[in-house]
Amino acid sequence: MLSKNTVKFIKSLHQKKYRTENGQFFVEGEKSVLEVLLSDFLIELLLTTESFEKKHAEVLKSFSGQLIQVTQNQLEQLGQYQSNDSALAVVNMKANTAFEPKTSDLIIALDDVRDPGNLGTIIRVADWYGINKLVFSPHTAEFYNPKVIQATMGSFTRIQFFYGNLEEVLDRWNLPVYGAFLNGSNIHQMAKPEQGILLMGNEANGISAELEKKVTQKVTIPGFGQAESLNVAIATAILCDNFKRLMST
Amino acid sequence: MLSKNTVKFIKSLHQKKYRTENGQFFVEGEKSVLEVLLSDFLIELLLTTESFEKKHAEVLKSFSGQLIQVTQNQLEQLGQYQSNDSALAVVNMKANTAFEPKTSDLIIALDDVRDPGNLGTIIRVADWYGINKLVFSPHTAEFYNPKVIQATMGSFTRIQFFYGNLEEVLDRWNLPVYGAFLNGSNIHQMAKPEQGILLMGNEANGISAELEKKVTQKVTIPGFGQAESLNVAIATAILCDNFKRLMST
Repeated sequence: MLSKNTVKFIKSLHQKKYRTENGQFFVEGEKSVLEVLLSDFLIELLLTTESFEKKHAEVLKSFSGQLIQVTQNQLEQLGQYQSNDSALAVVNMKANTAFEPKTSDLIIALDDVRDPGNLGTIIRVADWYGINKLVFSPHTAEFYNPKVIQATMGSFTRIQFFYGNLEEVLDRWNLPVYGAFLNGSNIHQMAKPEQGILLMGNEANGISAELEKKVTQKVTIPGFGQAESLNVAIATAILCDNFKRLMST
Repeated sequence: MLSKNTVKFIKSLHQKKYRTENGQFFVEGEKSVLEVLLSDFLIELLLTTESFEKKHAEVLKSFSGQLIQVTQNQLEQLGQYQSNDSALAVVNMKANTAFEPKTSDLIIALDDVRDPGNLGTIIRVADWYGINKLVFSPHTAEFYNPKVIQATMGSFTRIQFFYGNLEEVLDRWNLPVYGAFLNGSNIHQMAKPEQGILLMGNEANGISAELEKKVTQKVTIPGFGQAESLNVAIATAILCDNFKRLMST
């Protein structure tokens, strides 16, 4: 039975303030909830429809948190999806712990990518290319924003990330930093890159002047037409594709 | 002076029904309005702030339609932008006229890409890569949707497009058709492609079974991780980048 307090609590998680206060966020939809169930994220509370429960009885056997059966209508009033006939999970955030790079890692660093859709799409792209380490400047969009979670299509469960001062992080790691600029080396003619960091900048302003100093190689996607720029998630995808093509040959 | 009727009319253009009835759509923001002013689209009505008018007096000299000076507040109530201190244009749609391919053209065909943001992003990507011909299945998102126009960042002024039955169009053109699938040839290992058509499918269902029969070569973006798929605008961008890289060497 879904209490009024639980409803109120889940609705509060639409706001960053309450997510941060509680250290929790929500995940909705069949695919994403299944991915969380199979991940190392801890689910505190799981709301499911009867049909989801039947269909995924095997997966749910190993779930030890609180489970409440609800209707599709209830799910749709709690989450942001217009249509949700499966599940919604309240999940604990992870600690913001820095990782250290390993040999042969390619790491994506984001300097103030503000749009949640862009951040989510970049995480999905990273997961596609097997890049599972990302580091975000403090003003990058919030990882646990429902729009970010939605855009990752479950990929948020498979990456390591932390928020930190990128100048300090890049100094500490002391690796090649490939920065996306409009006036760098043509990525189609680049030599095989080394282990390093792919740095992408803010939607409007690009990479900040301070971080530009840490860039060891500026890279550019060649344009053949008249558009002035590409969306940052699109540019990240194209650069990852080129890096992986070069690194896997 | 902005009349109540004009306000009502512009607000009606937020809905597809009224755009279609009137054969008009709106464009907002400094960059996009300037691009339309410099394009072969016909602007019927231009609303500008005093500062936009002063800043772009040169460009406006050759504008012969109706111009009304408005405030930033009025612009923001008429359009979809939260912030707009420059201009909004009411523009005539173009006739839905089929083009014919020329030698060396690469053409993008979209089979029911439904999301306006995806369509707009694909148009911007096409313009970046100098691909200025696109053909859309009848159920692809509406080109004149304000969200499409916004996402193109002005690139909508530089492309040729039409909506049509893709099976008939592909039959008539009789060119190589490269279709994006999850089980095609690895695009990183592909030989130089010929003049032809890059066919992208619907967000959820991919390319329809009928159109799959017209595909002469299935192509795939190699994955290195665990994401199951890529967003269609992202996939289009990566494929365009690979095609252009191969075709320009």
